[in-house]
Amino acid sequence: MFEFKDNIPFREKKNDILTVGELLIDMMTTEYDNNDECNTYRKLFGGSPSNIALNVKKLGVNPIIVSTVGEDGLGRFLINQLKHADIDTDHIQRADESTSMVVVTKSVSTPIPIFYRGADYQISYTPKLEDSLINSKIVHFSCWPISRVPSRYTIERVIDTARNHDVLIGFDPNYHPMIWQKGENGIEYVKSIIGKVDIVKPSEDDAERLFGKAVPERYLDNFLELGARLVILTLGKDGAIVSNGRETITFNSLATQVEDTTGAGDAFWSGFYAAIVKGYSLKHALSLGFAVSAYKLKYTGAIVNLPNLEDIKEKYGL
Amino acid sequence: MFEFKDNIPFREKKNDILTVGELLIDMMTTEYDNNDECNTYRKLFGGSPSNIALNVKKLGVNPIIVSTVGEDGLGRFLINQLKHADIDTDHIQRADESTSMVVVTKSVSTPIPIFYRGADYQISYTPKLEDSLINSKIVHFSCWPISRVPSRYTIERVIDTARNHDVLIGFDPNYHPMIWQKGENGIEYVKSIIGKVDIVKPSEDDAERLFGKAVPERYLDNFLELGARLVILTLGKDGAIVSNGRETITFNSLATQVEDTTGAGDAFWSGFYAAIVKGYSLKHALSLGFAVSAYKLKYTGAIVNLPNLEDIKEKYGL
Repeated sequence: MFEFKDNIPFREKKNDILTVGELLIDMMTTEYDNNDECNTYRKLFGGSPSNIALNVKKLGVNPIIVSTVGEDGLGRFLINQLKHADIDTDHIQRADESTSMVVVTKSVSTPIPIFYRGADYQISYTPKLEDSLINSKIVHFSCWPISRVPSRYTIERVIDTARNHDVLIGFDPNYHPMIWQKGENGIEYVKSIIGKVDIVKPSEDDAERLFGKAVPERYLDNFLELGARLVILTLGKDGAIVSNGRETITFNSLATQVEDTTGAGDAFWSGFYAAIVKGYSLKHALSLGFAVSAYKLKYTGAIVNLPNLEDIKEKYGL
Repeated sequence: MFEFKDNIPFREKKNDILTVGELLIDMMTTEYDNNDECNTYRKLFGGSPSNIALNVKKLGVNPIIVSTVGEDGLGRFLINQLKHADIDTDHIQRADESTSMVVVTKSVSTPIPIFYRGADYQISYTPKLEDSLINSKIVHFSCWPISRVPSRYTIERVIDTARNHDVLIGFDPNYHPMIWQKGENGIEYVKSIIGKVDIVKPSEDDAERLFGKAVPERYLDNFLELGARLVILTLGKDGAIVSNGRETITFNSLATQVEDTTGAGDAFWSGFYAAIVKGYSLKHALSLGFAVSAYKLKYTGAIVNLPNLEDIKEKYGL
């Protein structure tokens, strides 16, 4: 049971956070566009676990990122971006598939991404991955690597190893049918994973895709009933509600200015993970997560120039 | 037997040329780039059969294009481009896969494209396709649709129908291992197709990929031995050699200025097809094909503003 007033005790480990999953290109239109008429695009570093790794590094804790890219120019670009951010690229695997890409149109209505999946789900479970995982405090992944084989098998082994070696498991249940293999019931599989992890952070949209339309409190129960130990349900501008199964607490959004919502969820994860690693109480860490998210919202892009966690703490009076 | 001095007799048909195959996005860097550092791209209409359809329309004959795009913004863009070019989009099928894309880096060395195949190989053989095929003089396709299932099956049926209804078959043997399903011997399959078509136009690179390193004359024999009836082997700036199995003739390049080689092969096909439809002798039609190619080489991009065939004929004194 996670108690809000307590910190999360971690065994002494060499690494803080290991993220496993999608490292990919976001190919984004340079202009807002509602009629498929914008012809120019900018290639950006993308993929939620990769964003989290970059963020936590800036906040002051150590990430390891395990991903697969293609043997192509886009893969080299992503690896170079990690190197520029001073992040170790030893765990980046290369596959004989094109580097995965998402084409995104900036839009004032809801943009519909177009997915091109190649290398991202070719992640292998290697002795090197296992060794780094055992020596990490936290492991994080999203629905991307579990949506396809062989990376699904890798995540299943990651979960087993993490549970056997006191590694906290955070899972982003960002289920979306468009990333799933056609004809497979992704929802049931995602639900089966929720019971095997410690912390989930669904958005209301994620929850609706998994459980149908309901009130937020019902969603908390849905996740808890499946076995999650801590459920952080984000409600956009209405903040978040969080339950440990016994107690539910509410957080107001700390955002004062919203320039771009891209990567706000990853910013939360990053602040929250950095804070629990640094020994803040669970409740304080949640607040710090929302503060990092609020800070990110003031700027455009998934990756912004975050200060370290203590500066954010001070800035938001936490 | 094709005689160089004769025209190719066609039965009276409603349509001139039907192309079946890839309609896709070329996502091209806006700058030359040898170090994966150019981050801006422009989306362009692409796919060889689609380029040919657009070209022949400008040259003055009627195309039908049979392709599949995704139910997404990139698919809508491609369909709109066809509409702007006043080309019928009735034969464009939609699939539940992302619109195919090739990421291309402009480079002073040989650029290495990155392939993202989705909707393009989902082409179905429909009664509508069959009806239009039977009522066409020429059908054209490249290695793309035969490289994957189900479009491979569609092409196999297209070949059968074309042979049963006096439709001339042109095939671009642009074999490349990167578009082929991994683990499958694409070379043997391409060779099996060559025996079932009338006209092939390999480049020297295409021929080398299929038959290994050899002299051009040997390549002509390779294709003829497999059953092609007319082999047009292009040699870049050195022109081309063409054989009907009995006689081999040489063409010098008509290019006076080379701005960009993209789409030069498609421009040849376009001029050649337009000319044989218009009743020029085979030899004259080959010259006109090389003239259209030379005209295209003066401009950047796969699709340039071609005049009609008679203007090209006059311009090049043919």
